[in-house]
Amino acid sequence: MNKALSYTDTHFNRFVDELIEFLRIPSISTDPEHAGDVRAAAHWLADHLRNLGIQTVDVMETDGFPIVYAEHIVDPSKPTILVYGHYDVQPADPLELWDSAPFSPVIKNGDLYARGSCDDKGQLFMHVKAAESFFNGTKSLPLNVKYIFEGEEEVGSEHLPGFLTKHKDLLSADVALVSDTALFGNGVPSITYGLRGLAYVEVMLEGPDRDLHSGVYGGAIENPINALAKMIADLHDDHHRVTIAGFYDNVIALTPEERTTFASLPFDSDEWVHDVGANKPRTENGYSVLEGTTARPTLDCNGIWGGFTGKGAKTVLPARAHVKISCRLVPGQTPDEITQKLKTHFEKHVPDTMKMTFTNLHGGHGALVDTKSDAMEAASEAMEGVYGEKPYMVRCGGSIPIVADFKKILGQETVLMGFGLDSDAIHSPNEKFGLDRFRNGIDSIIRFMDIYSQK
Amino acid sequence: MNKALSYTDTHFNRFVDELIEFLRIPSISTDPEHAGDVRAAAHWLADHLRNLGIQTVDVMETDGFPIVYAEHIVDPSKPTILVYGHYDVQPADPLELWDSAPFSPVIKNGDLYARGSCDDKGQLFMHVKAAESFFNGTKSLPLNVKYIFEGEEEVGSEHLPGFLTKHKDLLSADVALVSDTALFGNGVPSITYGLRGLAYVEVMLEGPDRDLHSGVYGGAIENPINALAKMIADLHDDHHRVTIAGFYDNVIALTPEERTTFASLPFDSDEWVHDVGANKPRTENGYSVLEGTTARPTLDCNGIWGGFTGKGAKTVLPARAHVKISCRLVPGQTPDEITQKLKTHFEKHVPDTMKMTFTNLHGGHGALVDTKSDAMEAASEAMEGVYGEKPYMVRCGGSIPIVADFKKILGQETVLMGFGLDSDAIHSPNEKFGLDRFRNGIDSIIRFMDIYSQK
Repeated sequence: MNKALSYTDTHFNRFVDELIEFLRIPSISTDPEHAGDVRAAAHWLADHLRNLGIQTVDVMETDGFPIVYAEHIVDPSKPTILVYGHYDVQPADPLELWDSAPFSPVIKNGDLYARGSCDDKGQLFMHVKAAESFFNGTKSLPLNVKYIFEGEEEVGSEHLPGFLTKHKDLLSADVALVSDTALFGNGVPSITYGLRGLAYVEVMLEGPDRDLHSGVYGGAIENPINALAKMIADLHDDHHRVTIAGFYDNVIALTPEERTTFASLPFDSDEWVHDVGANKPRTENGYSVLEGTTARPTLDCNGIWGGFTGKGAKTVLPARAHVKISCRLVPGQTPDEITQKLKTHFEKHVPDTMKMTFTNLHGGHGALVDTKSDAMEAASEAMEGVYGEKPYMVRCGGSIPIVADFKKILGQETVLMGFGLDSDAIHSPNEKFGLDRFRNGIDSIIRFMDIYSQK
Repeated sequence: MNKALSYTDTHFNRFVDELIEFLRIPSISTDPEHAGDVRAAAHWLADHLRNLGIQTVDVMETDGFPIVYAEHIVDPSKPTILVYGHYDVQPADPLELWDSAPFSPVIKNGDLYARGSCDDKGQLFMHVKAAESFFNGTKSLPLNVKYIFEGEEEVGSEHLPGFLTKHKDLLSADVALVSDTALFGNGVPSITYGLRGLAYVEVMLEGPDRDLHSGVYGGAIENPINALAKMIADLHDDHHRVTIAGFYDNVIALTPEERTTFASLPFDSDEWVHDVGANKPRTENGYSVLEGTTARPTLDCNGIWGGFTGKGAKTVLPARAHVKISCRLVPGQTPDEITQKLKTHFEKHVPDTMKMTFTNLHGGHGALVDTKSDAMEAASEAMEGVYGEKPYMVRCGGSIPIVADFKKILGQETVLMGFGLDSDAIHSPNEKFGLDRFRNGIDSIIRFMDIYSQK
């Protein structure tokens, strides 16, 4: 292990140069004009892995962008890890808000600025370089490694579950390892053990069958915007809890230990609220900001529209009003369950003046990982070795649906060892990744591979 | 009078041909490309009036489109009426929904189809042809007439109040006469004695200063859409009454006689609701559909928007949400009063997580006309002479702000004797005007002029 760490130390500047080369490929999966670039990124990555001496490297086609699969089996009796990452990136627009071109990486004050630097090319590349350091430092790997790097994460990983199902045997491993999350704070090591799920629906109310004159009809034809507003308002009670019947039934409650840990985390909620320009926080009664954003379910309107939205005063009584609503779910809740409960609620409460259309748009499962497993303990020890303190066990408010898929399809727990920061602007202009974190990530992965191989 | 009626009878086909010529001019005041056509319509009308032998005809400039002023004073001791109409029209789009070109008038089944046929060129022209019938039938007029025909009604009559103020003496008259409203039903004579006013505002709530990720922030940053929905929902109580403090304070209540009249009107509310494709009506508790739409104040959202409104599922917690809200006011309420009460209400109820922007967009006064005045009695007798039954006294749910201006600036009551129908599609494709109503309108105006001259 020390030879691997020393190899990284010696060759770190080259690693950065190679990452910059990888980042120059605009592999924007949402944009059909960049389809060729997405494929180019897959092949660049596969070639890179082959050159390291990995036994098997394959660009495997799906009905969308290919998955780069690689494996290196040193000894079937040793543990096997499945490393996941994605080589596609978010679009870069609005381009005018970037201080430097998104696909012309530059280093400023120790941070590498480029689209994908953190999400997820930079974090994916930590795993590649950790393997290289073992190969060249120790001539082998301490355990068996399988890699799947997909090119559709930013468009919903549509073909990944099918790929997992089809290649279940090929992908068998003791644990999955993912670096696509953030540290709790800069210099604050953490491992994510909880993720929220998602249930995303759209509701449309139609009153009259066409837009009406509010002078002629106002006062006797109910207004769909007013009716929808009432339905939305009634989704929360005065305690800021969701009123949908059974919404909290299957929530796995925070344990007293977890709440103690949450309370001990180095977190300033005033500063957090101030950073986004809000007046003050608003949480479900009885829960802190951290609990509210990571371990409690939510219901938010993501978009609303109806009637006249131009300049000035048009006196229309509109035919229709629309809203997009999503719930962040916590472990225990499932998207199907909550979507059905939302639907039942809306069907029950739609006013008799309105016709309703309810559409299920999207869903994803949350996840809760056993923090006491060998792999989690190995990850904790590995990060402690790098940071000099035990990492915090934290929950993340967002969703990484593949974690549930790894569990459901492959039967694997996932270790979420990520080195991003919330301030890395991963879906915004001026995305960046600190080179210190790139380095700490490689070192943590090297240590993890070594420690876990001995568990 | 009989000679005038008989002249109309003899020359009616020519009257229709002349109206068709007038309708061919696309005088769309909202469209800068048609500014020349709007002026052309003013001059066509002025020339037409001059040819009839009207004493004074003047195209008077404003800062917008001109007002065609005409007067014919037969005897200063006789009553004087001020006739108002507008020669501009609504835009015609969407053109593809017209069965014939909007500015190529065609007659089908006794209806004249063209943009402006009812609103208001056709109704304005009834007054011109009534005067012609007197001139040619009796060689004089029974009373003094002043005409103001404006070209900006469809863009808010911005320059009319200033014109009234500037030319107060010139426009002095005993009563104003306006034909820009509808009959209660086809073959159901009516005179409008009440109009609603308007208070139109826009409200914006801002929570965070930028759009946020609903996974990272959802659960502790209040959502402006949800907050706005709650504020909108709270504007009505369970009795479908507006909850704003003092909202009903100045409402002039319907009298028992009025309510009896409303109940006796030939009106089928089921059919009315069915015609607009709604499930059922919804009125303020204790009031009928007719009362709710014409004699009670309302609060409707005219438009709402915020967050992600495209296709699919974007998990944004938006920074802002916007709504346009308007109240139809009834006599007694004023736009300034209600706008202030709305503002006070919103300022009091905005959540402490939100910053609010309140904008007053537009306002207009309602009107209530004395149904027992000489002019109203003359109008009633005139229409009874044509229709064989006394016209109903009705209220209109829309707003005609000039009626309040005539009262406030010129001190004149207004008689609203209109011959449109709600089914004339006046702001929609296939606008039409029944030639029977064009004829009945001319006859009613001739009778009104004769009867009122003797009051």
